[in-house]
Amino acid sequence: MFDLIAFDADDTLWKNEDLYARAQERLRSLLQAYCDRQEIDQKLYDTEMRNLDYYGYGIKSFGLSMIETAIELSDGRISGKDIQQILQALKEMLGAEVHLLDGALEVVETLSSQYDLMLITKGDLLDQQRKIKRSGLGEYFKYIEILSEKDSQSYQRLLDRYQIPPARFLMVGNSLRSDILSVIALGGKAIYIPYNLTWEHENADGQPSDEHSYYQIEHLGEIPSLVARLHKG
Amino acid sequence: MFDLIAFDADDTLWKNEDLYARAQERLRSLLQAYCDRQEIDQKLYDTEMRNLDYYGYGIKSFGLSMIETAIELSDGRISGKDIQQILQALKEMLGAEVHLLDGALEVVETLSSQYDLMLITKGDLLDQQRKIKRSGLGEYFKYIEILSEKDSQSYQRLLDRYQIPPARFLMVGNSLRSDILSVIALGGKAIYIPYNLTWEHENADGQPSDEHSYYQIEHLGEIPSLVARLHKG
Repeated sequence: MFDLIAFDADDTLWKNEDLYARAQERLRSLLQAYCDRQEIDQKLYDTEMRNLDYYGYGIKSFGLSMIETAIELSDGRISGKDIQQILQALKEMLGAEVHLLDGALEVVETLSSQYDLMLITKGDLLDQQRKIKRSGLGEYFKYIEILSEKDSQSYQRLLDRYQIPPARFLMVGNSLRSDILSVIALGGKAIYIPYNLTWEHENADGQPSDEHSYYQIEHLGEIPSLVARLHKG
Repeated sequence: MFDLIAFDADDTLWKNEDLYARAQERLRSLLQAYCDRQEIDQKLYDTEMRNLDYYGYGIKSFGLSMIETAIELSDGRISGKDIQQILQALKEMLGAEVHLLDGALEVVETLSSQYDLMLITKGDLLDQQRKIKRSGLGEYFKYIEILSEKDSQSYQRLLDRYQIPPARFLMVGNSLRSDILSVIALGGKAIYIPYNLTWEHENADGQPSDEHSYYQIEHLGEIPSLVARLHKG
């Protein structure tokens, strides 16, 4: 039934948002003399959204937006030493070990024996390549695609390039916006596995209509049997 | 004779290094109270090299290294307001118009009627995509590849993927290290067009051996006739 099964990576196959949360906690403690936690979180999010067209996704963009937030919320009074700590937090994120989510290796290994698999991520080219390498999962994926944005247009371009009819494409991921709604809008199939932490930006507003629906599961380990059921139709 | 002709983009088809030079000039004026120009340039270069494994290439990486340099050279005394100026310089780089080099459009248009063309750049995914769009040259390239590194390995992977024998591949670029030596080491052909500004990192140390040589020209406009001569053998 499927010509291609694609997986998102960050917070679908390995932990990612935890790194951002930890760095943000550090920003809060650097700025606690200037404003409260809620104000910091809101300002950081607004800064990231405003910078998205300039910086795109990824850790370096996040770091630059943290620095900008720190300067603005402190009205320029933040010290060079404190900004150095933000840079340090950034490098720790980039150097962090990859922690696979429970069942990731087994699912990818099992499915790769029956289907062509693709990894579809967005963000920094080098950082994503490094994480794929560290994850040890690269060998199970026939194709790896790192995109600057995961919207319907970019999925359509991918499907065109690989000559895959949308109905024969299955996407697995933790972001309603980037992995699920963008794919089912094209007529593709999608499996949604929520992660316990989600960046606000990835929470979609709209609900899919009845005819374009997706499958929601709680654990990666449920995928092979779900795929087998879909295969039987 | 060639199955594929590939072009580097930054400082080969359009101006790029000028943007970096202008931002670096601004860093120098911010730091002039702390140290001299030469010290700033050297420290920035050392910081960029040390960060390359973390950040990779591109404008965001350059910005983060500028901030780190400013903090270190001022011994943490640089103000938040001054760092905000570095962020501002960064955004101006990312928002800059694309200025095509003389003859770029004509050469690409001419060659695209006879050969499959590929654009091969490195750096930030989003920034490179944006520049390709702004350049108006995207339509002449059958393939566009944005890499995290342009070494012999990454060229080899590209040639494998597109099933191009190295001897039937021609690369055009302004960086001896990234565009020329990496390609001729594989048995590919290369045309070197030096640009008047070159980032120190792109200046290669070694000279190619006699049997693996490249063609050096001064102007993009010389390419079609050189390719025709090579074609006749």
